[in-house]
Amino acid sequence: QDLEKKDQSQQSQVQTLENSQAQLQNHRVAFHAGFYTSTEEGSYGPFDVGTVIKYKKVLTNVGGGYSADTGEFTAPLKGTYVFSFVVHTTNNTFTSLMKNSEALVYGHDKSVTEKWDSTTGVAVVTLEVGDRVWVKLQPRFRFSAFRGFFNTFSGFLLFPM
Amino acid sequence: QDLEKKDQSQQSQVQTLENSQAQLQNHRVAFHAGFYTSTEEGSYGPFDVGTVIKYKKVLTNVGGGYSADTGEFTAPLKGTYVFSFVVHTTNNTFTSLMKNSEALVYGHDKSVTEKWDSTTGVAVVTLEVGDRVWVKLQPRFRFSAFRGFFNTFSGFLLFPM
Amino acid sequence: QDLEKKDQSQQSQVQTLENSQAQLQNHRVAFHAGFYTSTEEGSYGPFDVGTVIKYKKVLTNVGGGYSADTGEFTAPLKGTYVFSFVVHTTNNTFTSLMKNSEALVYGHDKSVTEKWDSTTGVAVVTLEVGDRVWVKLQPRFRFSAFRGFFNTFSGFLLFPM
Repeated sequence: QDLEKKDQSQQSQVQTLENSQAQLQNHRVAFHAGFYTSTEEGSYGPFDVGTVIKYKKVLTNVGGGYSADTGEFTAPLKGTYVFSFVVHTTNNTFTSLMKNSEALVYGHDKSVTEKWDSTTGVAVVTLEVGDRVWVKLQPRFRFSAFRGFFNTFSGFLLFPM
Repeated sequence: QDLEKKDQSQQSQVQTLENSQAQLQNHRVAFHAGFYTSTEEGSYGPFDVGTVIKYKKVLTNVGGGYSADTGEFTAPLKGTYVFSFVVHTTNNTFTSLMKNSEALVYGHDKSVTEKWDSTTGVAVVTLEVGDRVWVKLQPRFRFSAFRGFFNTFSGFLLFPM
Repeated sequence: QDLEKKDQSQQSQVQTLENSQAQLQNHRVAFHAGFYTSTEEGSYGPFDVGTVIKYKKVLTNVGGGYSADTGEFTAPLKGTYVFSFVVHTTNNTFTSLMKNSEALVYGHDKSVTEKWDSTTGVAVVTLEVGDRVWVKLQPRFRFSAFRGFFNTFSGFLLFPM
């Protein structure tokens, strides 16, 4: 009887362990996408208002958090995430990585004529389910769009909470 | 009796698993902080000696490793970590990501008049408990400080060792 | 008898848990290396063909995936990885982070005379065992090589698949 009781208690412990390990394996979220033009060279913007940069060329999208339609990553679960973006310019760019309507890191790069330049932002941030992360092109600025991964947006779940 | 012995052995295995899974869950370390001024625009530096950049605006600090008072991240446990920093300039900046007194990656950006520019560094490094990671402004250089996250310092634990 | 059967079933569950936890602990892959010259300042390139940048100064290499001899990271297991690179220039650089022969992110930075600049790329990508990730110096471009970590290549395994 005593042994049977122990056994049941063990069974419950093992179940708990299996659940949390399954959770760990389900918590795989990672993406990498590029803003991509089919033409050789071009400029994107300027616009009068802040604009979501829609990275249409999706290379990685484990867990399905990133949408090429909206350009936004939507957190599928609460946790701490890491994001980064790269923007190239031959002119004057001003961008920011956004959590909903809050800026996490800016990328400002005012280039001179005929010069190439880039700016890269990184942020580590805790998100609630449904929080949206996106890259904003600030009003009246532009960036340089080319064929290939010159302008990218990436992110991944670091740990669930 | 045989069964009882097996049961004890299982109990010990389950205990070991629970401990190492608890460890995994406790090993959550991640931060993101910005160097932030309340004025609209300004320059930080130059100084005669190398100076710790103190990122006062703390957005993320899971695990408490980063201190806004000292500007330093102190490793709470041995493991491999990832760090990054972004610096903006309208002048001439020279910075480095430091592990104690050792440089892990430099960010050098000599801009021309009226131009905006940024430099971003990333490093992956194994730390012992108590190792300090910080961003150094090199002697006689400056960077550009603004309201908002133009200058950031981020990091996270990749895995304990 | 019933108890004995339960016990065997539990033993098998515990074994499965131990195996997958051992896997988690073996899946530690992370590196950070610098392109490093012993001279104070210099330029690397240009070459007529695309060239692997060989980062010889290896600071971190957990799991042994990076080779200073070839300059390439070779995936020891299938999974999703994160990579980044930093390139400095005082001239005109054009680099790309490569997965085998496919570009994941570009770094193009055409500087003006006597200026320092840098470009940083980040990518999140799923690799099969044996896939190679490297940084390519594009034909006819150069970058600036100095003593110290001005030019770096880093990466880590995010999760196995």
